[in-house]
Amino acid sequence: MTLPFSIQAQAGPARLARIHTAHGDVETPAFMPCGTAGTVKAVSQDILEDLGAQIILGNTYHLYLRPGHELVRKLGGLHRFMSWDRALLTDSGGFQVFSLSELRKVKEEGVSFRSHLDGTSHLFTPERSMEIQIALGADIVMAFDECTEHPAERERARESMEMTLRWAKRSKDYFEAHKHEVPWGDPGIRPSGHRDIPPQPAQERRGPGTLDIGSSEELTVGNPTFSAENSEGIRKPEPPTAPALFGIVQGGMYADLRRESAERTIELDFPGYAIGGLSVGESRAKTMEMIAAVLELLPKDKPRYVMGVGYPEEIVQYAAMGVDMMDCVLPTRAARHGLLFTSEGRINIKNARYAQDQGPADPKCSCRVCARYTRAYLRHLFVSAEPLAGVLNTVHNLAYYLDTMRSVRHAITLGDLSGMLSGSVSLT
Amino acid sequence: MTLPFSIQAQAGPARLARIHTAHGDVETPAFMPCGTAGTVKAVSQDILEDLGAQIILGNTYHLYLRPGHELVRKLGGLHRFMSWDRALLTDSGGFQVFSLSELRKVKEEGVSFRSHLDGTSHLFTPERSMEIQIALGADIVMAFDECTEHPAERERARESMEMTLRWAKRSKDYFEAHKHEVPWGDPGIRPSGHRDIPPQPAQERRGPGTLDIGSSEELTVGNPTFSAENSEGIRKPEPPTAPALFGIVQGGMYADLRRESAERTIELDFPGYAIGGLSVGESRAKTMEMIAAVLELLPKDKPRYVMGVGYPEEIVQYAAMGVDMMDCVLPTRAARHGLLFTSEGRINIKNARYAQDQGPADPKCSCRVCARYTRAYLRHLFVSAEPLAGVLNTVHNLAYYLDTMRSVRHAITLGDLSGMLSGSVSLT
Repeated sequence: MTLPFSIQAQAGPARLARIHTAHGDVETPAFMPCGTAGTVKAVSQDILEDLGAQIILGNTYHLYLRPGHELVRKLGGLHRFMSWDRALLTDSGGFQVFSLSELRKVKEEGVSFRSHLDGTSHLFTPERSMEIQIALGADIVMAFDECTEHPAERERARESMEMTLRWAKRSKDYFEAHKHEVPWGDPGIRPSGHRDIPPQPAQERRGPGTLDIGSSEELTVGNPTFSAENSEGIRKPEPPTAPALFGIVQGGMYADLRRESAERTIELDFPGYAIGGLSVGESRAKTMEMIAAVLELLPKDKPRYVMGVGYPEEIVQYAAMGVDMMDCVLPTRAARHGLLFTSEGRINIKNARYAQDQGPADPKCSCRVCARYTRAYLRHLFVSAEPLAGVLNTVHNLAYYLDTMRSVRHAITLGDLSGMLSGSVSLT
Repeated sequence: MTLPFSIQAQAGPARLARIHTAHGDVETPAFMPCGTAGTVKAVSQDILEDLGAQIILGNTYHLYLRPGHELVRKLGGLHRFMSWDRALLTDSGGFQVFSLSELRKVKEEGVSFRSHLDGTSHLFTPERSMEIQIALGADIVMAFDECTEHPAERERARESMEMTLRWAKRSKDYFEAHKHEVPWGDPGIRPSGHRDIPPQPAQERRGPGTLDIGSSEELTVGNPTFSAENSEGIRKPEPPTAPALFGIVQGGMYADLRRESAERTIELDFPGYAIGGLSVGESRAKTMEMIAAVLELLPKDKPRYVMGVGYPEEIVQYAAMGVDMMDCVLPTRAARHGLLFTSEGRINIKNARYAQDQGPADPKCSCRVCARYTRAYLRHLFVSAEPLAGVLNTVHNLAYYLDTMRSVRHAITLGDLSGMLSGSVSLT
């Protein structure tokens, strides 16, 4: 089995689980920081580890254009290239082609486009997307899909959905034939010429979300092979030896099309399913309606991933609905624009009211930024356009998102997410 | 005494010493990273601590314009504002007015100028510079001087030197009357609302430069008050309760003017002396000639600081000549342009030759960047204009400079700097 998935606790439809990858376990519900071009912008990998990030995203479109997937493959894959020994997920490139490239043309074969960097012409097909993602060596690979534009007429949404289904089949066929070509060597190997430095333990940050998973009832699905019990008595499945391919549900903003897309994607049999084509300008109520329609149908024993969401209150809501994985550029991008997420709401650190504010960004946050720096200092850095502003703001926002998911996981072990959801009234 | 200075070993004219400040000891010869606007660009304070930086610079001109010295004073001083509990030195503002501001006019009273940020008019006088630096709360304050332009005719250099001497007297008069107004509270106090987190120990990085200073013969000058012996049996002087003011030697590129400037500045009696007005376009041979002329005259029992230098081989050379302190924007600024200092020479990480280079920036460096990332990755970050490029390049370059000084200090304990100097043949 390519992606063992162990459900450890449930609270209504919400699940606490672990995805077992070749590069470590991912506790879910998980928020995955975006490492677009092989770097979570402004944050070094040791800080990501310290924040407790267990999986990050890489963008196929960006990495294909620069430095190029063949170079990354040659250098041992993306894990080794960027020195990240934990799990990686790559998107299919479909969404970025949709949102970033120029002169895009969608045909049955695939999507031709011009690079936003230098105007050169390129073609992404399902096969090409798989080839690139396998070269990068992601633990979780995404099927090549078309992100339906919004708004879209029903017929257009259906046509786009049908295309995505055909591309899903082609993605799977290519992926299954080539998935063992990932460049995973020994992920512990350091670049040549380096001292043999023992890996630093990824310290769990203190907080209410720290889990004692050994005490949870555990259901591991997907017929994994189990290795011997570890010192905590937890049966740990053998890590997979190849990446896993996720299918993507599309269907625009039409619930019946979403359901049809889900059913027909499930027929193709993937080890995990994503819901794509959301957060493209629709209302939050519509986003939630589409997610709810699809979640009813998705297999309960496999990870479920909503792509490209969202605000903190949204990711809590979706986790409560039974979503296991989410990603979004919001915490990192907003940080670079001075927008901080806090337990007291969003604050724009540029605001003059913070000029003499000696409190931390968030009084309830225990991240390294809140433990050390004041709002007054963060404001000074931001208005002075200092590079440290982007660094510190991003670290705090990621800590806030990752702590939020940690609290969600803790609440699931307690069997009650209502306390988490009461803070999300702003949703409606 | 405001600045106890303990000489622990000598190798020719070079000295291994400690400056005892109210914010910790500074081992010399020391390289001081530039924290221009209250931040060493792109590097967080915990990393600076980890790199072993014991003192950093703040720029009076920048901090006066933004966020303003009165704000910094109100928030507890620069140490607290930027969360830096180690030593701080501020420059006088004279050099930055000289190099950055617009419509500069020098009069006997001081220098009027327009801000490079918004064109507003300002006046720096010796008294004003002292007032600002005391408000910022630096441990070491620099006298307000005129950085003589280069080239300058002899008569012009003399006039400028005379002005600097008059300003030095005015600086000292104001400073002595107001030095106890520094906003030092308990430097251990964290911003309000913060948890009481014990300070992390500043770990000495492993390396050949780690010193066992307890075994060195020690000469502490300046009649310091000694506290009880510590656990290592080292007599440690009581930390000063007020900042120290350094005088600055000018005199252009004329050795006799430099000597006269030194003699007359020494007559004013400062606890430390700087050599300013160098690295303004003159040859390295001329820089060294000026430094040598002044060092002959400066008191051997006080710290000697050459401002605004230099390349790694230069700072080794000057330390060998008996200089105790140096600062330069070179390691940080060059890093942001992709220029890395290594034991194999300077490299431009943008170069295509590094695209597939799996070695670290410097095979002999043990910094956190070289321990983890390849040249290929650093090149990718730089050509992709990723913010992490500036972070990692700066951390490495600072590590290289600080390690270089650590090696110099180690060599002084061994009584022989010749091994360090053999690498500096490119000087001549």
